[in-house]
Amino acid sequence: MNIDTSALQQRFITIRENKTFELFVIAIIVVSALVIGAKTYTINAQVDALFKILDITITLIFLAEIIIRMIAEHSLKKFFSKGWNIFDFIIVTASLIPVDESEMALLGRLLRIFRVLRLVSIIPELRVLLNAFVKAIPRMGYVSLLMFIFFYIYAAMGSIFFGKINPDLWENITISMLTLFRVATFEDWTDVMYETMEVYPFSWIFYLTFIFIVAFVFLNMMIGIVLEVLQREHEQFDRESGEGEAGEVHWIREHTESMEQRMERIENMLINIQEKQKGDSS
Amino acid sequence: MNIDTSALQQRFITIRENKTFELFVIAIIVVSALVIGAKTYTINAQVDALFKILDITITLIFLAEIIIRMIAEHSLKKFFSKGWNIFDFIIVTASLIPVDESEMALLGRLLRIFRVLRLVSIIPELRVLLNAFVKAIPRMGYVSLLMFIFFYIYAAMGSIFFGKINPDLWENITISMLTLFRVATFEDWTDVMYETMEVYPFSWIFYLTFIFIVAFVFLNMMIGIVLEVLQREHEQFDRESGEGEAGEVHWIREHTESMEQRMERIENMLINIQEKQKGDSS
Amino acid sequence: MNIDTSALQQRFITIRENKTFELFVIAIIVVSALVIGAKTYTINAQVDALFKILDITITLIFLAEIIIRMIAEHSLKKFFSKGWNIFDFIIVTASLIPVDESEMALLGRLLRIFRVLRLVSIIPELRVLLNAFVKAIPRMGYVSLLMFIFFYIYAAMGSIFFGKINPDLWENITISMLTLFRVATFEDWTDVMYETMEVYPFSWIFYLTFIFIVAFVFLNMMIGIVLEVLQREHEQFDRESGEGEAGEVHWIREHTESMEQRMERIENMLINIQEKQKGDSS
Amino acid sequence: MNIDTSALQQRFITIRENKTFELFVIAIIVVSALVIGAKTYTINAQVDALFKILDITITLIFLAEIIIRMIAEHSLKKFFSKGWNIFDFIIVTASLIPVDESEMALLGRLLRIFRVLRLVSIIPELRVLLNAFVKAIPRMGYVSLLMFIFFYIYAAMGSIFFGKINPDLWENITISMLTLFRVATFEDWTDVMYETMEVYPFSWIFYLTFIFIVAFVFLNMMIGIVLEVLQREHEQFDRESGEGEAGEVHWIREHTESMEQRMERIENMLINIQEKQKGDSS
Repeated sequence: MNIDTSALQQRFITIRENKTFELFVIAIIVVSALVIGAKTYTINAQVDALFKILDITITLIFLAEIIIRMIAEHSLKKFFSKGWNIFDFIIVTASLIPVDESEMALLGRLLRIFRVLRLVSIIPELRVLLNAFVKAIPRMGYVSLLMFIFFYIYAAMGSIFFGKINPDLWENITISMLTLFRVATFEDWTDVMYETMEVYPFSWIFYLTFIFIVAFVFLNMMIGIVLEVLQREHEQFDRESGEGEAGEVHWIREHTESMEQRMERIENMLINIQEKQKGDSS
Repeated sequence: MNIDTSALQQRFITIRENKTFELFVIAIIVVSALVIGAKTYTINAQVDALFKILDITITLIFLAEIIIRMIAEHSLKKFFSKGWNIFDFIIVTASLIPVDESEMALLGRLLRIFRVLRLVSIIPELRVLLNAFVKAIPRMGYVSLLMFIFFYIYAAMGSIFFGKINPDLWENITISMLTLFRVATFEDWTDVMYETMEVYPFSWIFYLTFIFIVAFVFLNMMIGIVLEVLQREHEQFDRESGEGEAGEVHWIREHTESMEQRMERIENMLINIQEKQKGDSS
Repeated sequence: MNIDTSALQQRFITIRENKTFELFVIAIIVVSALVIGAKTYTINAQVDALFKILDITITLIFLAEIIIRMIAEHSLKKFFSKGWNIFDFIIVTASLIPVDESEMALLGRLLRIFRVLRLVSIIPELRVLLNAFVKAIPRMGYVSLLMFIFFYIYAAMGSIFFGKINPDLWENITISMLTLFRVATFEDWTDVMYETMEVYPFSWIFYLTFIFIVAFVFLNMMIGIVLEVLQREHEQFDRESGEGEAGEVHWIREHTESMEQRMERIENMLINIQEKQKGDSS
Repeated sequence: MNIDTSALQQRFITIRENKTFELFVIAIIVVSALVIGAKTYTINAQVDALFKILDITITLIFLAEIIIRMIAEHSLKKFFSKGWNIFDFIIVTASLIPVDESEMALLGRLLRIFRVLRLVSIIPELRVLLNAFVKAIPRMGYVSLLMFIFFYIYAAMGSIFFGKINPDLWENITISMLTLFRVATFEDWTDVMYETMEVYPFSWIFYLTFIFIVAFVFLNMMIGIVLEVLQREHEQFDRESGEGEAGEVHWIREHTESMEQRMERIENMLINIQEKQKGDSS
């Protein structure tokens, strides 16, 4: 029995590594995505029935695929140690729950939408990109926190001063923060400003300082961090491949090391020669 | 006969390399562009007749020029191996098709517009720029795909939830994606948001997460890639010319290499001296 | 008595360095911020009474904390030599002033809002970020001055030419500068332009040159400066930690120095050997 | 007489180099700028009279200053070889022309506005910034030309297809280009698009490709060039001062050079030693 399982596992590993299998799964995800897209158009009953059958087929294929990948893995623990596997598992199993009631139906449709994200989990290049994006998040964390503090302070001031001028925009701190986000994207921000300038003629100082702090400095910091993350990975790649400036610097570093060792040998030899010479002449 | 052809070819190569010939062709393209521009103004019949004669002249000059360049090239195969030549050939030959019918006339006018692009194919500096731009496209490919996936998911969600609120903006997935592109450019995005917030008060989460993902992170990635492509070419240029930091690093690398060889010679000599010394003293 | 003070000081230093104490202060600041936010909503009398008690408690805790930190410091002079301490001191002591009158009440609320900024002064990572931001200010100073000069010139021209067309936008130089800032953020700038183009059909030159100078070149310079400040700190960190390209370059520099010294020793030894050899053979 | 002139010249050089003189001229320019700003407000007759006197005084001081600087220079040729001096001379002498007629009055006011630019010519840091900006222009030239070609092609297409839909936006190629510039700044571009989509439902392709080409790629190239110019100057400064990565690389380069020379000496000595040894032993 043990041998059978092992043989089955081996076969499943072969399937998983197969390029055709991967392309087939990608094709199924794309079909799944197209169905989701098509459903947003008004469709007649026949096509709808076809879509239901397609949906069941897709769900079953996804189930089969994830079972193959689970068995191909040495242990379930190892399978679930990868974030992307957990994501795939949740998306696939959640699709199995029958969704007949109207409220659950909405959830079911949402789940099917998120199946499109499986494309990211299956195409390595996209996974690398999203990982780079996720890697930048903690570094952006403190910048975001600082930005949030400034938003909070300006929103509190805004709702104290402008709350009675236009409650739609400044009623409380949540609405004020949304309004300030709008100002930060330069979206009709002058309309917001002109309205409050009628009551407080100097309120433009409020908006201009806010725009300078948030839109210019912090967004630039964001750009800076993303660029740095990209540049660092690029440098890392250069260093390993020996290409570019970073690669040449790395080459020089390594050769400097071997040159130093050679020089040490040379110095030691010279000391020997010198001592020998002294011995000879004496 | 063979000698005649060869002589003709030689003469055409001379013409092709001639700076005046190049400037003449550039001037013709500029005139061609000005005619296109002038035609968008309301013009009287006389000027229009003049333009028709001008158009025929320009087409014939272009035809002559491309024939010269084809003959100047060693073989037709070599001529068509360059992308820009194919582009020029299509633009020029397609202009020869008579365009009398109203529908074809439109196509003819479009073709004449694209003749302006010949400026890019004839001025080397512009060709370099466009090549750099084209070179960045594959690297942008995966970022664009990832961006498209996010657009697709958000558009599907948008058309499910907001489809009934405003069909003009969220009717189906295509329209929803266009609306989201509008949101990504910050163009009246708050109008879109306020409308849906009346039904779903928390739909601002939908817009803010979308803006953060698409407008901030992905656009920054785009900027990052373009900057990297520019910087890499700049570094390449520096390395070859020996200027700047990258040039100095390259200089150091090469000299480190020659220093290492010299050191190896030194070490070998020392080994010889040491052994000779031993032989002498023994 | 002197010993007692010293013991007290020692105890206060222990408290100040305590992680729990720091977290407690952070928690109090967050509570203080939440109260400020909650107050912007319509609240009933009971909650308002609770908030008043909370406010007094928070003020007292802040007072206690700043006294602890003042005593923990060796001298008042040293305490006030740090910018952040002065900021904390002003925010805390100003909160002590009773704010019963309506005008003072507004000031009191503003002061309580600025207490949120104490988060920046207490979390080291945020302090580093804000310092980087402050560090970029002088470098931005001249760019801002140049930008201001261009704004001023364009605003003066704008108010001379367009002042009678729309006094709301171009009445005097201050209003004109605000309008130009709006144009620089691309906010409904075409409405401003179309209005003046009805009188001066070529006024689009005014707007386009302005947008090119201010929005493209100067904002890019701003981005450039922020990126440079970030990159410089990043390089500095690399050099010190020995990581990355800058780190490797620094490593090479140091090792090149030691290699040079070793080579000098080698040369000197060789000179000795050579002279010894001459002496021996003669 | 010759000695007198020389003494006068010497005295004027002393004045020109005087820091107080420079500050005085800066103060006068600032006053001149403030007068220009104040004039855009409605002012009463008395203040206006004061401004007229002020204007004459300022003009005379500027005249005196430029004469001092002209005499302080060794020759007029040398004086006019500097671009800034020519600018100053034109601004100052043009202000001398009496401006009584209404049309000339406008020109006179414009000239007085441009006097504010003298701040740039007199403050060295601003001059450096503007030079950097001017230095970036030729590099931006080809990018701008490529951008203009794309604008021209899209504008020609736009005015052919959309000319009858909305003549205000697409009547001829000039107006179309202005409309496209508006689209490139994302200013109400969807209004433009929705209008044409009613006639040509697929015209969104026109806008989206345009936005991708112009707004994303070319603007990024612009950012890239400005960043590169900034970075290059920064590297240059580092190399000369020996600071930062570029400075360290330069240090290594120079020391590698001296190390190589030392090594050559070492090798030559060893060759001597080896030959001496051979001579001795034989």
